[in-house]
Amino acid sequence: MSSGLVTSRRNRRTPYTECVESLGVSGFSIVNHTLLPKSFARSVEEDYWHLKEHVQLWDVGCQRQVELRGPDAALLAQKMTPRDLSAMTPGQCYYTPVIDNHAGLLNDPVLLKRASDWFWFSIADSDLLLWAEALALGMNLDVEVREPDVWPLAVQGPRAEDLVARVFGDGVRSVRYFSFLECDFHSRQLVVARSGYSKQGGYEIYLDDSALGITLWDTLWEAGADLQVAPGCPNLIERIEAGLLSYGNEMTRENNPLEINLDRFCHLEGEIDYIGRSALEAIAAQGPSQRMRGLLIDGTPCPPCGKPWPVLVGDIKVGQVTSAIWSPAFRQNVGLSLIDKDHWNPGTPVTVLLPDGHELGAVITSLPFTVSSSTP
Amino acid sequence: MSSGLVTSRRNRRTPYTECVESLGVSGFSIVNHTLLPKSFARSVEEDYWHLKEHVQLWDVGCQRQVELRGPDAALLAQKMTPRDLSAMTPGQCYYTPVIDNHAGLLNDPVLLKRASDWFWFSIADSDLLLWAEALALGMNLDVEVREPDVWPLAVQGPRAEDLVARVFGDGVRSVRYFSFLECDFHSRQLVVARSGYSKQGGYEIYLDDSALGITLWDTLWEAGADLQVAPGCPNLIERIEAGLLSYGNEMTRENNPLEINLDRFCHLEGEIDYIGRSALEAIAAQGPSQRMRGLLIDGTPCPPCGKPWPVLVGDIKVGQVTSAIWSPAFRQNVGLSLIDKDHWNPGTPVTVLLPDGHELGAVITSLPFTVSSSTP
Repeated sequence: MSSGLVTSRRNRRTPYTECVESLGVSGFSIVNHTLLPKSFARSVEEDYWHLKEHVQLWDVGCQRQVELRGPDAALLAQKMTPRDLSAMTPGQCYYTPVIDNHAGLLNDPVLLKRASDWFWFSIADSDLLLWAEALALGMNLDVEVREPDVWPLAVQGPRAEDLVARVFGDGVRSVRYFSFLECDFHSRQLVVARSGYSKQGGYEIYLDDSALGITLWDTLWEAGADLQVAPGCPNLIERIEAGLLSYGNEMTRENNPLEINLDRFCHLEGEIDYIGRSALEAIAAQGPSQRMRGLLIDGTPCPPCGKPWPVLVGDIKVGQVTSAIWSPAFRQNVGLSLIDKDHWNPGTPVTVLLPDGHELGAVITSLPFTVSSSTP
Repeated sequence: MSSGLVTSRRNRRTPYTECVESLGVSGFSIVNHTLLPKSFARSVEEDYWHLKEHVQLWDVGCQRQVELRGPDAALLAQKMTPRDLSAMTPGQCYYTPVIDNHAGLLNDPVLLKRASDWFWFSIADSDLLLWAEALALGMNLDVEVREPDVWPLAVQGPRAEDLVARVFGDGVRSVRYFSFLECDFHSRQLVVARSGYSKQGGYEIYLDDSALGITLWDTLWEAGADLQVAPGCPNLIERIEAGLLSYGNEMTRENNPLEINLDRFCHLEGEIDYIGRSALEAIAAQGPSQRMRGLLIDGTPCPPCGKPWPVLVGDIKVGQVTSAIWSPAFRQNVGLSLIDKDHWNPGTPVTVLLPDGHELGAVITSLPFTVSSSTP
């Protein structure tokens, strides 16, 4: 669904908004009260092919940081996630589901450990800052919680490594996935992490001085001229094909981490203490009642999924589509869906009910999609 | 600023979204991860005149409720706001700034007291739910905090009373400003409050069953046919003329309540305990360094204020414009602004610097604007 967006100061600009405006951004989304570019001149499919072949700059400044710093920072970080952080070292990034007291998902940030007493949660769309601050206040912890002047810029695509190395040096080539280096840039030390919301490879640069936004963008832009660098944004086709989840779409507070297949990030055996542990243990003992699954959906390109589409077996609702789009790779519509336990086995034939009443045949697949998924 | 909005399930629909779509909504904003209609076929100025003469239905379902219920509900509510709640009785609505430990504004909700142990914060754009829940958890309070299935629908304009009385009975006529009644509607008891984000009079109906959304909208719509009822939304001209503040525009976490003239909602003399009190006392002792003021700005209709515009005296920046628009009533641009202490006296001539480099003459006024403001 696309329609007019009426913005005001309440929808914060990023240090890169001017840059994407000058490059013809034609649509935004709002994430964390901040503008996220969502479309440029090209179609989503043209953008998808470009992302898979070249390199793109993404203004993901909306990925705000929740900084925990001080003697109790590590304690608070661990309270906030069921993932075991005990072996995490400075320079690492962890994908960390954050849950409430009922094991409902509050956010699914990437956690960066800057030092033993210094963490950044790089967040999806909810005010995790308020959660962290109020916990610190209510529990009387010795930690400063704030949103620093940090604005990620993503460089994504197969040529991202070449481009980032030109600007930050060849050291970035040896950075492992979900690790980061600190790199010089105009007298600042910027976190440069090998990460990002695509499976095409790339980096996220955590600019910590908004006044340098245009300089950073322009430096990368100019260095990438011969690499066909283009402005971009998280690509709906690419992320669904890759099985990348989106907070607010695939998961909300109504969901627990087990339902969306985050079992490996849920510490349930050892002694680690975190909010929601007893609720999560109870769910784990029972087993989740639904799971995130892929769907291969018949028919011509489906409309955008602006609200959950029912998934049926016969007349019975057995789940819902959370995101869907036409996949050029599979030459079929692909979707992400939450499917009830009795029907979640890959290969199960189902029906998807569109808002206009049309029904499309579909088949359940495992995630991420694989070539064999298309011929179950 | 207006451009494409790319939405997904993450931007929640309200029980009324279908209704506004069928009536030709042409633009949305996002508030609390929820769609807020912001424009229909008419211009903002046509909409303004209609609002001042007739009656409008506003889909303000994005005003989500943070419900506190249980033995410690009153204690938690008081912790969250500097306003003294000790004399509040069930059936009352209070405007309640919510501040953090540094007296920074987290939200400026309307608080509804349903019962001695049952409150709703009807919130502006930030996830106050996370703040309230984490406080309850960290402080180990005996209170359930949740977002109930409640979706306000506003009826605003001089004919609102007639329209609401037709649907809910003449009892609503005697409801005082910022009080509410419970009224029968399809076997439910709905909170009907005399309140709303305009100064034209009206009500907010707190529908507590999303399945009845279309029924409620249609019932009001049909009852108002001869009253020229129209779909509408908070009107930028009307709210600026009335001096109504918007969280995220006029105030952010960078601001304390005294800066935006909320002194009368800040309990500083008695014994009431709330978060941020000592910080607020320190600010009050010193006096705020800036204040919210009106501006009457010269020239032809100004562009939309998408980012803060500097306010200058000579070459010195003395403040910023937070919202501005052409006022048909004053035949002049009107703005809201934060102005430094040494320059905030009404009548002070200043200059407003637009993003394109143009400078406009302006004069500082008190708020709300009055007819005499236009001839200071």
